[in-house]
Amino acid sequence: MHTIKLTIEYDGTNYHGWQIQPGFTTIQGIFQESLSKILGKATKIYGAGRTDAGVHARGQVAHFYLQKYFPLEILHRAINATIPNDLVVRKIEEVPSSFHAQYSAKGKEYRYYILNQSVRSAFYKKHALFIPFVLDCDQMKEALSHLVGTHDFFALSVAPEKMNTIRTITRADLFKEDNFRVISLEGTGFLHKMVRRIVGTVIDVGRHKIPCTMIPEILQSRNKGLGGLSAAPYGLYLISVKY
Amino acid sequence: MHTIKLTIEYDGTNYHGWQIQPGFTTIQGIFQESLSKILGKATKIYGAGRTDAGVHARGQVAHFYLQKYFPLEILHRAINATIPNDLVVRKIEEVPSSFHAQYSAKGKEYRYYILNQSVRSAFYKKHALFIPFVLDCDQMKEALSHLVGTHDFFALSVAPEKMNTIRTITRADLFKEDNFRVISLEGTGFLHKMVRRIVGTVIDVGRHKIPCTMIPEILQSRNKGLGGLSAAPYGLYLISVKY
Repeated sequence: MHTIKLTIEYDGTNYHGWQIQPGFTTIQGIFQESLSKILGKATKIYGAGRTDAGVHARGQVAHFYLQKYFPLEILHRAINATIPNDLVVRKIEEVPSSFHAQYSAKGKEYRYYILNQSVRSAFYKKHALFIPFVLDCDQMKEALSHLVGTHDFFALSVAPEKMNTIRTITRADLFKEDNFRVISLEGTGFLHKMVRRIVGTVIDVGRHKIPCTMIPEILQSRNKGLGGLSAAPYGLYLISVKY
Repeated sequence: MHTIKLTIEYDGTNYHGWQIQPGFTTIQGIFQESLSKILGKATKIYGAGRTDAGVHARGQVAHFYLQKYFPLEILHRAINATIPNDLVVRKIEEVPSSFHAQYSAKGKEYRYYILNQSVRSAFYKKHALFIPFVLDCDQMKEALSHLVGTHDFFALSVAPEKMNTIRTITRADLFKEDNFRVISLEGTGFLHKMVRRIVGTVIDVGRHKIPCTMIPEILQSRNKGLGGLSAAPYGLYLISVKY
C-alpha cells in the first residue's frame, strides 16, 4: 500500500467547506468522488483540517491510500482533469506510511486579506474583506504580539466548555500588500473559528473599539463575549501546513 | 451645465463589454441606467474607449453632463449604490466643459496578466491567462521593444483595410509579479484588438514559434496572418487613461 500526499489549492466560494456533508458540495466530497472514479473503488481522503464554507486554501494538505501503484504524474493529471477548475492539486508525492495529513501536522499558516481603501473594489468581493475605515495598524500589530505564545484561546473560539483550548501561536504578523492589509498567523494548531475570531478582534482594535492591551485580559477571562465577532470567511486563506 | 468625469473600475467577466448594445448587459448600459434613475432624466455617458466582453478595467474613464448641480460626494455614493458590485466608480470630479473622455485622451495603459506556472491555479480563471509552458522572457522583451514607436499596426489588429492604422506605442514592458508575467503597453491610441493581438504574438515569441526579430517584418507586411492570435480577453486590464 502507498500513502499519497496531496497539496491542494482551492477557491472556497462555491463550496460548503472542506469536510464531507451529505447533501452539500464539499471539497473533500469532490476529491473522494474523483479518486473513487479514477481508482475504480471507494477511496477516502484525509485532510489536515477543516476549512469553513467560503474559506480558501493555497496549501491545504490531504492524504489517501493507494492499493496498487499508479504513476503519480498520471494520477496528478487525472485528478486535476476530473475536479472543477476552482480546485487544483498543486503537488502529489508518495510519503512514508506513517504520514497522516492531520496527525502528523506540526503547524499551519493562515492569512487573512483585508482590502483597506475608501471605495470598494470591483474585484475580490469573495476573496478579501473590504474595510473602508482607517485602521490603526500599530495597535493591530501590538494586539497580534499579545497572541504569540501558548495561551488558552477559549474566549476567541467557538469551542465547547470542556474542550482543551490551549494552543500555541508561533508568529502573528500584519503586513501591507498593495491596498491589502494581511494578517498572518502561524501556530501549532487552531480551534474552530479561532483565526476568524482573532481577526475580528484585531480589526476591532484597529478601529479603536477594543484597546490592544485588553487582549491578555480577553484570553484570561474565558469570556466569549469580550472579543470581536468572527471575520467573514471569504478573507481567509489556509496558506500551508507544516510537517 | 457641469461636465463630470468618472474613473471606473470593473470586473468584465459578466458583461458584454463597455459599449451599449441592445439586448446585452454592458457596462455603459448599466451606468446610463443608474444615472438616468438618479438624475430623473435619460443621461448619456461617454467612455474613453470600448473594452471587449470579458476585459477588465482598473481605470476606465467616462464623462457625462449634469444640468443641475448635485453634490458630487452624494452622487458618487448614489451611483455606487445602484450599480452591481463588480463595477465601481473610484473617483468623481467636475472638469472643464471642454473635457471629453474619448477625444481629450492623450494615452492609455493596458496590462495583460499571464499566470505562468506548471499547474493551473484554483483562482484567476477569469482574471489571467494560464500558460503552463516555459516562456522565453528575454525574447518577449525584445519583441516588445520592436513595437515601441510610431508604426502601422494594421497587421496586429482587426482593423478594416482603409482605416488609418498608424499608432504610437510609448512604452512596452514585461515584468514579473508573483507567478504572473505582466505585459504592460502604453500608447497614444490602440486599434480594436490590437493589444490582444500584440500579446498573442509576444506569447508566440516566448514559445519560440515566432522569432522576435520578425516583429518589424510582420508590421511592415500589413499581413494579418503572420502574427499570433488574439490572446483571451480575461487577461486584459485597462489600467489608466492619460489626459
